[in-house]
Order: sequence, then C-alpha cells, then structure tokens
Amino acid sequence: MLGKVALEEAFALPRFEEKTRWWASLFSTDPETHVKEITDITKIRIQYADKHGVGYQILSYTAPGVQDIWDAKEAQALAVEINDYIAEQIKEYPGRFGAFATLSMHNPKEAAEELRRCVEKYGFLGALVNDTQRAGPDGDDMIFYDQPEWDIFWQTCTDLDVPLYLHPRNPTGTIYDKLWADRKWLVGPPLSFAHGVSLHVLGMVTNGVFDRHPKLQVILGHLGEHIPFDMWRINHWFEDRKKQLGLAETCKKTIREYFAQNLWITTSGHFSTTTLNFCMAGVGADRILFSIDYPFETFEDACVWFDEAELNLTDRLKIGRENAKRLFKLGSYHDSSA
Amino acid sequence: MLGKVALEEAFALPRFEEKTRWWASLFSTDPETHVKEITDITKIRIQYADKHGVGYQILSYTAPGVQDIWDAKEAQALAVEINDYIAEQIKEYPGRFGAFATLSMHNPKEAAEELRRCVEKYGFLGALVNDTQRAGPDGDDMIFYDQPEWDIFWQTCTDLDVPLYLHPRNPTGTIYDKLWADRKWLVGPPLSFAHGVSLHVLGMVTNGVFDRHPKLQVILGHLGEHIPFDMWRINHWFEDRKKQLGLAETCKKTIREYFAQNLWITTSGHFSTTTLNFCMAGVGADRILFSIDYPFETFEDACVWFDEAELNLTDRLKIGRENAKRLFKLGSYHDSSA
Amino acid sequence: MLGKVALEEAFALPRFEEKTRWWASLFSTDPETHVKEITDITKIRIQYADKHGVGYQILSYTAPGVQDIWDAKEAQALAVEINDYIAEQIKEYPGRFGAFATLSMHNPKEAAEELRRCVEKYGFLGALVNDTQRAGPDGDDMIFYDQPEWDIFWQTCTDLDVPLYLHPRNPTGTIYDKLWADRKWLVGPPLSFAHGVSLHVLGMVTNGVFDRHPKLQVILGHLGEHIPFDMWRINHWFEDRKKQLGLAETCKKTIREYFAQNLWITTSGHFSTTTLNFCMAGVGADRILFSIDYPFETFEDACVWFDEAELNLTDRLKIGRENAKRLFKLGSYHDSSA
Amino acid sequence: MLGKVALEEAFALPRFEEKTRWWASLFSTDPETHVKEITDITKIRIQYADKHGVGYQILSYTAPGVQDIWDAKEAQALAVEINDYIAEQIKEYPGRFGAFATLSMHNPKEAAEELRRCVEKYGFLGALVNDTQRAGPDGDDMIFYDQPEWDIFWQTCTDLDVPLYLHPRNPTGTIYDKLWADRKWLVGPPLSFAHGVSLHVLGMVTNGVFDRHPKLQVILGHLGEHIPFDMWRINHWFEDRKKQLGLAETCKKTIREYFAQNLWITTSGHFSTTTLNFCMAGVGADRILFSIDYPFETFEDACVWFDEAELNLTDRLKIGRENAKRLFKLGSYHDSSA
Repeated sequence: MLGKVALEEAFALPRFEEKTRWWASLFSTDPETHVKEITDITKIRIQYADKHGVGYQILSYTAPGVQDIWDAKEAQALAVEINDYIAEQIKEYPGRFGAFATLSMHNPKEAAEELRRCVEKYGFLGALVNDTQRAGPDGDDMIFYDQPEWDIFWQTCTDLDVPLYLHPRNPTGTIYDKLWADRKWLVGPPLSFAHGVSLHVLGMVTNGVFDRHPKLQVILGHLGEHIPFDMWRINHWFEDRKKQLGLAETCKKTIREYFAQNLWITTSGHFSTTTLNFCMAGVGADRILFSIDYPFETFEDACVWFDEAELNLTDRLKIGRENAKRLFKLGSYHDSSA
Repeated sequence: MLGKVALEEAFALPRFEEKTRWWASLFSTDPETHVKEITDITKIRIQYADKHGVGYQILSYTAPGVQDIWDAKEAQALAVEINDYIAEQIKEYPGRFGAFATLSMHNPKEAAEELRRCVEKYGFLGALVNDTQRAGPDGDDMIFYDQPEWDIFWQTCTDLDVPLYLHPRNPTGTIYDKLWADRKWLVGPPLSFAHGVSLHVLGMVTNGVFDRHPKLQVILGHLGEHIPFDMWRINHWFEDRKKQLGLAETCKKTIREYFAQNLWITTSGHFSTTTLNFCMAGVGADRILFSIDYPFETFEDACVWFDEAELNLTDRLKIGRENAKRLFKLGSYHDSSA
Repeated sequence: MLGKVALEEAFALPRFEEKTRWWASLFSTDPETHVKEITDITKIRIQYADKHGVGYQILSYTAPGVQDIWDAKEAQALAVEINDYIAEQIKEYPGRFGAFATLSMHNPKEAAEELRRCVEKYGFLGALVNDTQRAGPDGDDMIFYDQPEWDIFWQTCTDLDVPLYLHPRNPTGTIYDKLWADRKWLVGPPLSFAHGVSLHVLGMVTNGVFDRHPKLQVILGHLGEHIPFDMWRINHWFEDRKKQLGLAETCKKTIREYFAQNLWITTSGHFSTTTLNFCMAGVGADRILFSIDYPFETFEDACVWFDEAELNLTDRLKIGRENAKRLFKLGSYHDSSA
Repeated sequence: MLGKVALEEAFALPRFEEKTRWWASLFSTDPETHVKEITDITKIRIQYADKHGVGYQILSYTAPGVQDIWDAKEAQALAVEINDYIAEQIKEYPGRFGAFATLSMHNPKEAAEELRRCVEKYGFLGALVNDTQRAGPDGDDMIFYDQPEWDIFWQTCTDLDVPLYLHPRNPTGTIYDKLWADRKWLVGPPLSFAHGVSLHVLGMVTNGVFDRHPKLQVILGHLGEHIPFDMWRINHWFEDRKKQLGLAETCKKTIREYFAQNLWITTSGHFSTTTLNFCMAGVGADRILFSIDYPFETFEDACVWFDEAELNLTDRLKIGRENAKRLFKLGSYHDSSA
C-alpha cells in the first residue's frame, strides 16, 4: 500500500551523538546503525519510505528526551532547541514530513505556550510527550498530567485542535529500584512501557481530564499499551464503582466511550494481525493508526507485515493512512490522493 | 455446564470480621454482603455452586492476606492458622472443596516447608500467593520470588508436583505513593493487579526460574494479567535481545514456550468471550481454566457468561473442568465424571 | 441502543392468509403467530420496535414471493399489487417504515421500470429480490441476473442510486429433487439459502456485473451467506486464475475490492458475536448492517444480542444505524438523530 | 515445524497422463508441472517435504476420480487398480507415506469390502471419497451416502476404526447445467466444492448417520467447507426445528456435538490465520489438521504460512501433527517423535 502515514518515528539531535551511542548500546543489537538512523532526518528515512510505501512521517524527539531532564530551565531550553531544529530540517519536505512538538512538562503554562508556538509558527501537528516528567532535586519525582493544574495545557491542545501522543519513557528513580532493577529485561517494550502509559492515560480518564476536555485527542502506541485487552474488565469494574463509590464524579462516561471519542492507538512495535483484529473489535478500525517506531523497529518489519496482513480493504486504507489524514487534517502528500 | 471447577475463590477468617468490613468498604458496592460471603465457607458457596453448575472449588485466603504482613513471625503464624482453619472447614466436603496453601513468603525455606505440610498433611492442591511479600521495618520493601534464593521453594513445588497461583495484591509503600495514590480508581482490578503480577511472572521468566525448574506450573488470573495481549511484542523483543544482549543466558526458551509448558491462565473476573477467543489463539485452550474470583465477582456473572459463551464443546469442557482435573489430578467430584 | 435500522423484514399480503398459514407450517414452530406477525404491517411491528429500540424498518415482501411465479404476467401483476399495497400501508409512518420494491424478474426492462416507478412515485429505498426467478413452462427454469441482458436493470439501480438486497429463495424444480429432497432439513436457513445467494452474487462478480456497474450496491443477508469465510481462498484462487486462465477479462478487481466497493452484509438471522467479529476483520464494519429477518427471527433475539454484544461503540453505531443512514440517505427518523 | 502430517495430497495414475494433462489445462496456470507433480509419488514429494518440514503424507487418488465413473463395474475395477498401485508405490517408505483407499461408491457393500481389503491387506489409514458418486445411464444421477442403505459401509468404517475424508468433486449433469455452466469460474475451490461437501455432510448429520454410527469419523477439507461460519445459525435453526418439527428424530445431538465427536477439518487450500483462529473458537484446535492439497496448492504456500502463523505452540503442534498422530494412530515417522 502506497501513501502510508507513520507517526511514532523518532529522531535525536546530532550534538548528542555520544549519548545516543551509549543509550543504543543498552537495547540495540546494532548500536552504530541505530545512531545513524536516528540522527538522520531526511535521507535514510526517505529511502526506507520509498521502498516500503510510506508517504508521510510525523517525527518526534526520541525518549526519554526532555522528560528525562529534571531541571526545568534546561528542559525548556532543550525542547525549544529541538523544535527549532526539526522545523528547519523538514521545511523543504512538506509532502514527506510533519513533526510533533517536544515539550518540557515541568510547567503546564509553559508547555502550552511552546505547543502553541510550534503549531502556529511551524505547523507542527500536535505534541509527543514521553510519559511523566522527571522532576525534583534528584530527578526522582514524576509529574503526571492528569491533575487539575494541567487543564490549561489540555485546553490549549483542544483550542489548537491538535492531538497529543503519550509515548512511554523508561522508569527512573525509586520506582526503578523497587520494581525494575532486578528484572531489567522487562524495561522498555516488553513491559515497562505499557505499565507507564496505561497508568498515565487511565489516570487522565478517571481523574476527569476527558470530561473537562471532551474534544481532547490522545494517541497511544503499541496497539494501546495493554488497555484494549482489559476493555471488558475495566468497564465492568468502573461501571460498578460508579454506582456506589464515587468514580462517576470525575469519570462520567464509560471506558468504551473514551476510546470512541478521545483515544487513538497505533500499530507501532506491535506487528500482529491477531492482536490487530482483536483491537478492531474492541477499539474499532476508525481509531487505529499505522506506525512503525523507527528506528527501534524497521520499516521492513512494519510495512511488509501491514501490506500483507489479512484485512478488509476499507480498514486497511483507514489504518494505513485515511485515519491519519482525518486526525491531522493532512492534505495531499507524497504518494497519496488528497 | 455441570461440574465446573473454580480456583480463584477467596475466604477470610471470621476473627478479622471488622477488618474485612473496613476493607470491603473500600471497593465493594455492598460491603455487608461481601463480609458474609467471604467469611462463609461451605453454606452460601454451595448454594451458589448448585445453582450455577460449579462442582468443585479450590479456596484460598483473600488478598492481601499474609503478603501484607511485614513481620515475618506474625506472617508465618497467620499462614499456619489459616491453613489449619480451612483444612478443618472443608474436610467434610471432599467432593466440593479443595484448598490452596496460604504462605508467608519472608523465607523461601519456611514457605517451602509450610507448603509441604499442607500438601502432605491436608491434601492441599498447591499454593496461592498474593504477588510480592511486604517486608522491611515499615513494610515498604517488596520481596519478589524471581531471585535465586527462591529456588528452594520452587524446587519444593515441583517435588510435590503442585502449582502456584500468583494472585495480585494492591500496591503499598513508596510505589503506592508515587504511582497510585493520585489515581486511586485504578488500584485493583482495573489496572494495578495486572501491573503487579505481569511484572512478577515475567521477572520469573527472564530471571530463569522456569529454566531452572522446567516442570514448575504457575497460574495467572484474569486471563493472564495483560500478557497475552503482547505475546507477539514480547516475543519479538526477547528474541532480538537474546541474539546479542545476553537475555539468552537466563531465558533460553521463547515466551510462547513458557506459556505452553509452565503457565496457565484463568477467566477470573474477565468474562469476555472476545478476549477468551483471543487467548485461545495466543495461549491455547489447553492452558485456560474457568474461575470466578468470588466473592469479588458473582457466580451468576461468571457462570451465566461461560455457560452461554459461543465456544466449541471440546474447549468448553476443557476450560470449564477438564484442564483443572488434569492439572490438579482431581478424581471424581460432585456433578462430574471421573 | 435506540434508533436501530433493520432491513430484512418481511410482510405478506392478507389475501394470501391461507397460503401463508400452509407455508408457515413447513418451518415455523408456531405457524399461527407467524401468520399474524407477517400479515401485520404497522401495529405489532411498532410494538416490538419500541420495546427493542428499532427506529426504522425497511419492509420487503416475503420469500419466495414473486420469484416463485413462473408466469411472467402473473408475476408482474403481483409485484405491482404488492408495491401499491405496502406504499399505502406505510405512508402514514414515514419516520418508522421504508420499503424495498418487489419485482418480477422475468424481464430486465420491466423490472427496471417497476423499480423506477416505486422509487420515484413512492420513495422506495431499493429492491429486494429472492434469488433466481422461476420461469419456463413448469417453473423449472431459473433466471439469474448475472447475464448481460440484465445490464439494463443494474444500470437503472445505479441511475436511481438505490441498492438491491439479494435475498434467498428455496430451491425448486430439478435442483430441489436432485439435491435437497432427501435432506429437507437443510432447505432454508441451515444451508440452501447460502448456497443459492452465494452462487448468484459470485456469479455477478465473475461475470462482470460490478465491473460494468461499478457503483452498484448489493446487500446480502445472514452475514454474507458464507462468502466471508472463504475470502482468503476465493481471493487466492481468483487471482491465480486471472494470471493465466482468463478470469481477468470479466472480473478485473479482487474479491476484497468488490466487498469494499459493491457489497454489504447484514446480521439477519445470524446473531453471533464471534462471527460478527470475524466479518469485521474480513469485510469491515463500514459494510455491515444490523437486521433481524422478522418474523422468521424475533426482535428480541436480534436486539438483545446486538445491544449486549461486545463491540466498540463506533462500530456498534455504524452497524446498528449509521451505515444504513448513509446507504439509504435516511434523514432523521424515530429515535435517531439526523 | 518439523514432522508435519498432510492428508489431502493427490496422485494420479501414470496411464492417464493425457487425461490428466487435459484436466490440468482447465484450472492450472502451469499444466505441465501439474502433470509431473501429480503423477510422481515419492521423488518430488519427498524433496518438497524435506524442504518444508512435512514428515508424513497420506496420499489419495485425485478428484473426480472413481466418483466420476458411472459404470459400476468400471468404477470398481479402477478403484482396485489404484489401491494396488499406491500400496506398491509407497511400501518402501513406511515412515513417509500412508494412503487413503479409493472406493467405487456404487454399492455400499462393495465399497465396505474394498475398504476392508485396503486396511487389512495394505494398512491404509481410511478412505477418501470425492463427494457423490456419478451413476445412472448417462452419469447424471448422484449417489449420496447419507441414506440408510449406506449404514453397512459406515459400520465397516467404525469396525475398522478408520476415518473417511469427504473430498469435493466438480458438479456434473443437470446440476452443472442449471447452476454452474454460466458461472464457470466458481466451479471448484472458489465455491462449488464447499457447496457439494457441505450439503453431503450435513445430510449425513440430519439423516442420522452419526446417530446410528456415533464413533464414525469424517474429515472435511478447506477448513470445513463453510460450515464453521454458520455454526451459530445452523445450531439456532436445528434446535428450533427439533422442538416441534421432527428433526430430533434423526438428529439427536447438536451441530456442535457432531463437530466435537465426529468431524474434523483440515487447512487444505485455506491458508488464512484469521479463518484458522475463527475455527479454533468454533470447532476447536483438537479437531483441526494441517493439510496442503498438493499439487493443487504448493508445499511452500501451505508450510510457510503454517510455520509462521501466529499460534500458541500447543495448538501449532496439535494442528501440525499431534492430532493426525492421534486420529490415525501413527507411530514414529520421519522427523517426528513417537
């Protein structure tokens, strides 16, 4: 399929090359290639994209990124640098690349303003944030965006009519030592990513963020970070609690309604037709978006899988590109029809 | 269907009635009924069972139970008390009830010995443990059983040829404050249970417990605590890491092999045919066991669902009772054929 | 769910009451009730609809109906009578009922003209035809509409922009004697219906009807009369034949393309969530329409199933009513939002 | 996966090479290769098998074969010739090949005797019959085996404890002219095969064959010839008819019971993971058998699909070989463990 849109696609700043190399050595089977691929913006990516029928990519700064910086000023400065950098890099390729804003999430108002700047000045298509923001004197605190003080930020998202991609970040601080240090192989895609994001987004659901911002759109990677598996169980438990225990005060709709009105899931890093079919039943093809998770995953793995997956054609087009065109209001781009 | 076997079925000690009432008030829409149901052993349960075609129930002490007691001596004393109590209660009903041993998990050798006592003296069918053991001076430490010092315990399980049910427990201590306090509606079935158990059991997988004890059988509730959803993703990531990053040293098989050889999942609290079908593809009907999670869930919800679920008859029998008869070497019991 | 639309809903002419009673005795467990229900147009139906959340019903003359009359003149006269009758009956209930034209299918031009009359004069929403038209001196011939002489009829459907529902009819004549007489329990819903319609509609596909009329819309009941089950197999075989054997001359697209562009399936008489989920993967929720098949099936069976089926909300709305509103360009009707 | 067993694998007699070539030209994109592959018994097949991990193949004479011969004596003579021929061909390869008896189905007693001869003399593993037997002076009659006179034959199958594979045959005679001549692309795998076999086997179900022979085992190819798709619908309709219309007299069990006790389905020619998953829910993995349908399908298509399909390991082993070992009481063979 031509003209696929992919939206969990990472880049890194060239000036952090050494750090990127060290980081890659922790998880990659080929760190050197990883460094090249994540630092490149338009050359290698377009080669892969052309080979595998990806028409448009929405780029975002790699995790943990700015969410790993617990000094608020430093975090903000880096976010601005990243946004200016990527805007410059892709400006000659409007038919091939878009970008998500990188945000320091220490301060809701500041985050909202940087998002506004990126959308209004550069035409960014939303923001991608790596789970919680590290904070505190030792970086051991975690800022969640499901508390009332973040309403100003979410309001800005809906005012600008752009979605936020809630991407994972590795556990850090006390949490890391308590839970993950002794079972390090589970850090990242095998488990910790889904733990982090599922907690965060269901925190938003139960703390009323989507009730207060009913037009807010949040995207989850990896086919929904486990949540679709428990759709029945969550619904069953929530609805029971609402009757008597008070959850209804902050969470007036059902979990199925939030998935129908506020949440999207992508295929990033989860190239399973069986799981995709399961999500089509539980979440619906209108809310599923193709993505790769490059360069942590390969274009080939993602695209060969998707192009050959047993799917009806209507939903293949939706998942492959039409849903993304609708969500991001994309016009015509490379290899696609408007 | 008659003769169903259910195995995540909780009871509490009568002398803790007040504590049980307080606890029930935190999650139950009808705490008084809950207290009655969980404290009763044989009367209400048999009424429900007769009405809904459950022939045999394996009882276990309710969570958090002994895993919540950070004083090792106190924990051990309570475990012994519980085991003696339930053995006495059910001894007149061998065709209706079995029990899982309750264990203090402060000390692997002590846990192994109490398990042996319960199996050899009382004919208990295994153990049910509530995730990590609280420990430390303030109860803020968490003992995981995926470390090498627990080999003596797992060895005893396989020597006795009995399975262990790894049941959830609510988060406590630092972890609670950092992650769950601000999103309290997610504590328990909606999310924290799956987080706790999936981390623990995948820790066992990656730290080599099943490689060192290839006959060990571990049961997970709630259709597998999210893990079946990510079977492809976990497999993909583990196999990649094994090639180059060293995971192969402690985890020689694939995640699908551990699910085929060492793990079982039950339907407790997850009465969804769509998810069950998904698990039949990913885990296989030979490793799925009917269960209720009474009295947190009702016999009616579980049994009406299961009895009416669209399923082929062979797998209905397996899931409803034949797999349990095989795993626990059950002979003839009420309403079943041997 | 309120405002459901149902579109395989049968009525009979009162003057055929005796014949209807005899017919009902062949398959119904309660023929007398059947006669009442199928002869009633607006009273009993609205009671059921109100009770079960059906907002709008598209009525059609029962099978075998006019397709069973091998005298062409008689068939045409009856079709006109039926159309005039049902138009009169429902005219006071524009928010509750629509109708499909009944057509004699002896002559393509005549069928096209009657369809045009019904659409233009009465606002009928398309036609429902009961598989092949009996013809010949003894009624042993079968007219299929997949031959070139029917292009004029299909052209009229697309000119009028209305769909045709290809409904089953019992086998008759030689075919009946050869295949079905000795296995009578398979006549009708258990098997012969799917045999008849799957042959007819795949005949249309392979004989080029949809290539010559790319806007033609055909609806199949009973979740697609078996065809979705073999989507892979049909595609595999067709595409192979196209390479070398000449099928490509009349059938330029793939079977998946015809299902995405020309075909719709309804849930009539097939209230299985597992099969519905399977069709959502293979056909896509955008092409699935709720229906009952009343009075051969009950409102209760169909609606209780659908309203409680595990489904994401977006697709529930689509299948329950939004797809029908789109296909039939329905405005606001009882219990629905425009 | 090594040691797969395949059981819908066709051969032809060398002396019919010209006829085979003509036949192949009707459907094959490469008739010459087809002739070579279907006429070869042990050389090409073993090469393919070794390459693709097939350990054991059960061979059967190609369709329409003896079922196409309406002269009873000629049919019987050919059946005997074929059985003697294949027994001779494979006798040196007991770890690689088994055979199904080819039978003339003009006379139940004669068919039973030839089956007995093949099983007792040659160790054949059952029989494969191509749908109905052509009969009558012009070959226009069709003998179905669902009538009482065939009880002697079915009794012999159960006495010998061997299954029968009910394989399709192309429509012939009046049926062909009435239904298939004008839509020739549907003859064979795309549609007519499933029509023929589904009618025949459901005729056996409703006419009481399995009630009178409760140990009889019948195998259907192509994932069940459409029947699993309508499991709910068939069950719904049959159970309703039993209440009042008399079906219960000859068909005492439910359709799900016959599928659990008497029927098997194979993957021949249907290499779809989505459909396989659907059948695992509706039929159950214990009753599904891997097969290819070589040389009408390729080893590569079948085996690469199956080996890479997303499946739990237990069911992969069952479907790939363990079910076949159980059904046919296979001991150790090439590349398998006993």
